[in-house]
Amino acid sequence: MGPAYTTAYRYFVDDPDTPSIEKTVFDRHFVGMASTFPARESGYVTDSAAGATALATGVKSYNGAISVDSDKRPLTSVLTFAKAKNKKIGVVVTSQVNHATPATYLTHNEDRNNYNQIADSYVDDGWKTDVLLGGGLKYFHREDRNLIEEFKKDNGHFINHYQQLSDLPDNKPVLGLFANIGLPWAIDDKQANRLKTMTKAAISALSNTEGGFFLLIEASQIDWGGHKNDIATAMAEMHDLAKTLEYLEVFVAENPDTLVVLTADHSTGGLSLGANGKYEWEPKVLRQMTMSPQAIAQKITEQKLNQQTLNTMLNFELTDEEYALLYEIEAADLVNAITINIRQIIDGRTNTGWSTSAHNAVDVQVFALGNSKNIFSGSQDNTDIAKKLFKLLK
Amino acid sequence: MGPAYTTAYRYFVDDPDTPSIEKTVFDRHFVGMASTFPARESGYVTDSAAGATALATGVKSYNGAISVDSDKRPLTSVLTFAKAKNKKIGVVVTSQVNHATPATYLTHNEDRNNYNQIADSYVDDGWKTDVLLGGGLKYFHREDRNLIEEFKKDNGHFINHYQQLSDLPDNKPVLGLFANIGLPWAIDDKQANRLKTMTKAAISALSNTEGGFFLLIEASQIDWGGHKNDIATAMAEMHDLAKTLEYLEVFVAENPDTLVVLTADHSTGGLSLGANGKYEWEPKVLRQMTMSPQAIAQKITEQKLNQQTLNTMLNFELTDEEYALLYEIEAADLVNAITINIRQIIDGRTNTGWSTSAHNAVDVQVFALGNSKNIFSGSQDNTDIAKKLFKLLK
Ligand SMILES: [Zn+2]
Ligand SMILES: [Zn+2]
Repeated sequence: MGPAYTTAYRYFVDDPDTPSIEKTVFDRHFVGMASTFPARESGYVTDSAAGATALATGVKSYNGAISVDSDKRPLTSVLTFAKAKNKKIGVVVTSQVNHATPATYLTHNEDRNNYNQIADSYVDDGWKTDVLLGGGLKYFHREDRNLIEEFKKDNGHFINHYQQLSDLPDNKPVLGLFANIGLPWAIDDKQANRLKTMTKAAISALSNTEGGFFLLIEASQIDWGGHKNDIATAMAEMHDLAKTLEYLEVFVAENPDTLVVLTADHSTGGLSLGANGKYEWEPKVLRQMTMSPQAIAQKITEQKLNQQTLNTMLNFELTDEEYALLYEIEAADLVNAITINIRQIIDGRTNTGWSTSAHNAVDVQVFALGNSKNIFSGSQDNTDIAKKLFKLLK
Repeated sequence: MGPAYTTAYRYFVDDPDTPSIEKTVFDRHFVGMASTFPARESGYVTDSAAGATALATGVKSYNGAISVDSDKRPLTSVLTFAKAKNKKIGVVVTSQVNHATPATYLTHNEDRNNYNQIADSYVDDGWKTDVLLGGGLKYFHREDRNLIEEFKKDNGHFINHYQQLSDLPDNKPVLGLFANIGLPWAIDDKQANRLKTMTKAAISALSNTEGGFFLLIEASQIDWGGHKNDIATAMAEMHDLAKTLEYLEVFVAENPDTLVVLTADHSTGGLSLGANGKYEWEPKVLRQMTMSPQAIAQKITEQKLNQQTLNTMLNFELTDEEYALLYEIEAADLVNAITINIRQIIDGRTNTGWSTSAHNAVDVQVFALGNSKNIFSGSQDNTDIAKKLFKLLK
């Protein structure tokens, strides 16, 4: 979520019928910026594992590292440090809960791709989190091992429906896994603002304590929208994050001893607002969309849809050329090919630019609200963020 | 100069043989960010005229406006306001001095493209600047009018060689025009760090006064490098700006009642550090270059150069395929076509991404040093920057 994403979000939620462009919750709490480069051996462009390791532990490591240093020695994270200081701890993500970012805060591994090992370690190293919410069922309920049963036998409270979030116990550990891998895109998910919903539930279970709590929240799929060069789903993910931050804004007002820090591990996709040599970015069609390009492509492959039906799904009117384009595709992975075409139609309508399917080394913004927020002002390195948090926790 | 440019510059000047990546002069003075959207009728992506009008006057206007509002009424700039407050004023740019940014600080016009009108107005409205340095000879010495002669008759001191900068009078207005339109690219210019050189001369002529001075400095051609998607020249322009800011850092240390504010009117080109799906940005070849792709292309069209000669010009070794590519081109504008190919070879070597030849609406950074720098901290609109300056000048 580099600067282009928060800027885009401001114009995405702008009401063009009002004279001025309102500040967003990101604008209200922006305080600084952070560099994101990984350890020397990985060049200047970080991946999520090295980025999250820096934010979690204050140490630069190689791309792929899960809270181990360049020599593969384990590092302490701010979250487990908070646990050792008798705080309750939680993790809420929209990726699988054993994905790079949550893993760096909870465990150690020399390779982010060891998903099963990482899930196993959550159980084998002693269950740490008071609340752990996100996706990843397939890694926890495997043929070779059923971590969910083990968790339940060890007094854990397991849930797998969003509705169960309204009634979490605060005296036993909670594991909530709501999808096989990552959660559905925010724009497609039946639970509106699922990140905010999970966050509220987690805080309600964590905050009922004298010692305080430390909660890691990741809007994981903004990055995934970026990798796919999918502006419609990326903006919907941003919206879920904004709603979460607005909830936290109220929580901090009511609990002024709370600190909220928001940043990104990196930016993705080389998103630009404006493309094709035009001085224009027009998010109008994005504001109206209610299904992801991927979900629409899925429907298209299931049955021939007429132009009117497709217009209803997209919530904007396709031209005849655009409609024809969607049905002229032959490809081994037809859903993927049609998804890409829909994204390109949307890029054309909005004049959105992308330069890569991978990461962009541009510095990221830092937002903070509540107690001690000012220590995150100005220019810093991503490792400084963890160092400042360790200092506050001491 | 959006966030990708200052980030790129940090890695461009990094010495990979040292363990850590040093902070740049931009990192040392970063304080906030600014939104750049123009007046409602021009959408979300600003051009340089509307961007500069906002920074100069505190008022949003339409793309193309030179310090006039949406109804084409003239607006007061911070620079002319400073003049009215008996401060000396100056303008130093690497574009022509009647280009959008300098023009918004000095005059009014309903269209930035009226270059002759804008130049005429500098004389006809009463000469305002104590020092005006940059390019633009062709607009000041025209067949229909010789503004230089008029300026000289009116007691003005005219120069057209960088060497004359070392001996500027401080008791009569100075006009220095060092090129027909914009100055040569920094990477090609015989005068190393021409922006810094002009800035030092201007400050020396302006600072010898009780009442203080207001100097507008624009590293105009960072944007031009962006429009051309030319990372090598863009980085060289950034270097000239960095050297200028380092000079100002010393000046502020010696004159702590001085305020320096640096920002951009917008970002350009959709620059990304990383492209082609790779987690990599490698500025090595950029650090070695001593000629712009354009200058090299010019040489190539003048005579057939062997691979060794071209390697020397580029300061890196072309592969046989790359060398062949440069001589396989047929085009009406051969220099331009070869320039584009050289840029693409460099993009390939560095893994640099671009998404457009025009502007990117991403928010820009704000840097400040010296007296009152803290009022520019955090999130703001570009118009706020002018409003804060007006307040300081009152
Ligand atoms: Zn990613
Ligand atoms: Zn421009």
